[in-house]
Amino acid sequence: MPIYKDNSHGRWAYLRDLGEAGIIEALRSHSASKPRPHVIQGIDDDCAVLRVDPSKDLLVTTDTMVEETHFTAQTLPPEALGWKVLATNMSDIAAMGGTPKTAFLSLALKRDARTNFLDAFLEGFNDLAQQADMVLAGGDTVEAPFGHVITLTLIGECLRGGAVCRHGARPGDDVWVTGYLGNAAGGLFILTEGLSEESDIGETLITAHRRPTPRVDLGKSLAQSGLIHAMIDLSDGISTDLAHICRLSHVGATLDHSAIPISSDLRRLAKSTGQDPEPWALHGGEDYELLFTAPKSNRKEIECLCPPNAVGPLCRVGTIVTEPGLFLIRENKSTPLDPGGFSHFSK
Amino acid sequence: MPIYKDNSHGRWAYLRDLGEAGIIEALRSHSASKPRPHVIQGIDDDCAVLRVDPSKDLLVTTDTMVEETHFTAQTLPPEALGWKVLATNMSDIAAMGGTPKTAFLSLALKRDARTNFLDAFLEGFNDLAQQADMVLAGGDTVEAPFGHVITLTLIGECLRGGAVCRHGARPGDDVWVTGYLGNAAGGLFILTEGLSEESDIGETLITAHRRPTPRVDLGKSLAQSGLIHAMIDLSDGISTDLAHICRLSHVGATLDHSAIPISSDLRRLAKSTGQDPEPWALHGGEDYELLFTAPKSNRKEIECLCPPNAVGPLCRVGTIVTEPGLFLIRENKSTPLDPGGFSHFSK
Repeated sequence: MPIYKDNSHGRWAYLRDLGEAGIIEALRSHSASKPRPHVIQGIDDDCAVLRVDPSKDLLVTTDTMVEETHFTAQTLPPEALGWKVLATNMSDIAAMGGTPKTAFLSLALKRDARTNFLDAFLEGFNDLAQQADMVLAGGDTVEAPFGHVITLTLIGECLRGGAVCRHGARPGDDVWVTGYLGNAAGGLFILTEGLSEESDIGETLITAHRRPTPRVDLGKSLAQSGLIHAMIDLSDGISTDLAHICRLSHVGATLDHSAIPISSDLRRLAKSTGQDPEPWALHGGEDYELLFTAPKSNRKEIECLCPPNAVGPLCRVGTIVTEPGLFLIRENKSTPLDPGGFSHFSK
Repeated sequence: MPIYKDNSHGRWAYLRDLGEAGIIEALRSHSASKPRPHVIQGIDDDCAVLRVDPSKDLLVTTDTMVEETHFTAQTLPPEALGWKVLATNMSDIAAMGGTPKTAFLSLALKRDARTNFLDAFLEGFNDLAQQADMVLAGGDTVEAPFGHVITLTLIGECLRGGAVCRHGARPGDDVWVTGYLGNAAGGLFILTEGLSEESDIGETLITAHRRPTPRVDLGKSLAQSGLIHAMIDLSDGISTDLAHICRLSHVGATLDHSAIPISSDLRRLAKSTGQDPEPWALHGGEDYELLFTAPKSNRKEIECLCPPNAVGPLCRVGTIVTEPGLFLIRENKSTPLDPGGFSHFSK
């Protein structure tokens, strides 16, 4: 049910009509679905007051999405924007092996946006928040003169001392990834090139871009299993994200070209548009799959932990090595692989 | 020491030259001043990992500052911006009676900003962070095409069950405020009207606008004393902020016109420019002083707790009453006082 329809004019009103208090009221109505014992005080005070289970560590992450930089009305309709700003932060919690719990949403919005923008945004946000049993406990609502800027801070928890960091990879480890790589980049290509969204291929890839599914349950299982050494989520593309693991672990890695999981949908899109799917898979980013490293001796147990029907394929794509740097192995030839993911402020 | 001067050209480089990695490196160098036992993992991973003292509750607040909406280059030079984005969030923690501990900074910045903008911003931020022994443990750094948008999330702590909320005011309580009201609005008036900043008056008022001092120690003392019922920080002006206390406490309040603390500097500015200082004091906002309510029987103890030389004046400005609404008492006449603070998205 839309909550802001301006029925008196038979069309959507604007945020400037709703006002700051009206927007906060909308957020409050979305946050109050059910009481949560860990939220002593939510929206409506200077701060939220949270009570933390002493057997847990706290995980905190924050992501900002800027109109024109991260999204346009064409690539991310408001419902997808609400979903995605939460999904990207949940993915960061998943990559530490944690459970997302409490969200803080800062909305810097254009005054001339329609209220159905806010309605759809909160619907997408709430869809995922409810699935994952999260609560919105605070935030800020301000006017942005030039474009929407949305910042979400997400607080989660993991067992005390149980967070899986990026810096634990060791030479000899397998490099694993969940799901397919490049689907989100393929979806973005369809949207920015204005290709038809109507085919089955388009739908799968566009969904990968617009409504990624963070791997929270799997991240938690992997962390609690004790089978893995390091983990990261694939937000910038494997060439960039695996490089972070390597830099922080003081190791290098080889990637096996033939093992990179590229979906048949992405291959079909590439073929029909004369594109090469490999850059999408290596550098595309925004897949929000998990990459982790683990000793070879744990292969069987890891495969048992990750049933393929639950997360798509689970692939061993490479090996951690002593020598620094990232290398792509193709037909027994090794070539350096430079980080090629999106970088803000780049030329 | 500036850290980004592009000496090769003898002038400041741009953020687009520094790049995302360079900006993160700058943030990292500012965050690594000394190790903090509660930060298990800081910048450099998908999430920060924090360990929480089980005798404490967690306080979380977030504020966004948008160029053109909250500041311009004229009203807030970058050093003041860095100070103020932290101060406003600290003030929210102070208003719950807590101690600020850990900051998460999301910077959405224009690519064509000079690197000395970032340098000065971090200098101002760090000035206050060091004074208050806080640590920067994470954030996000992205490109904003149209204007800077800065979001800070601040996590603090208070004794378990010891947070002072807005909803505790009771009929018969005194209403107290710390410091002077309206100084920040006077400073903003000087800056936006292009008046001289050079007089002594100007300096005090401009400092109130640019570098407010959050009342952290006092807020903590008041909370731990058990002498007070409700507290809020004066960010939107007393007419708006006291109305929040009243709404959430299901009470009303009267304000004594003659007791509102207006500084001699503000009165002199008003006189010399033909303005009325009262609207600045009642509706101006951004003073980041504390307003709290307490039983009449606690007056002496509260005065002992707040030595006037430490926080400027401490004034009893009104009374909580049963009847809803906010009323200004002037020469024994009571008139309704509508919330007149700044409201985003207003017409």
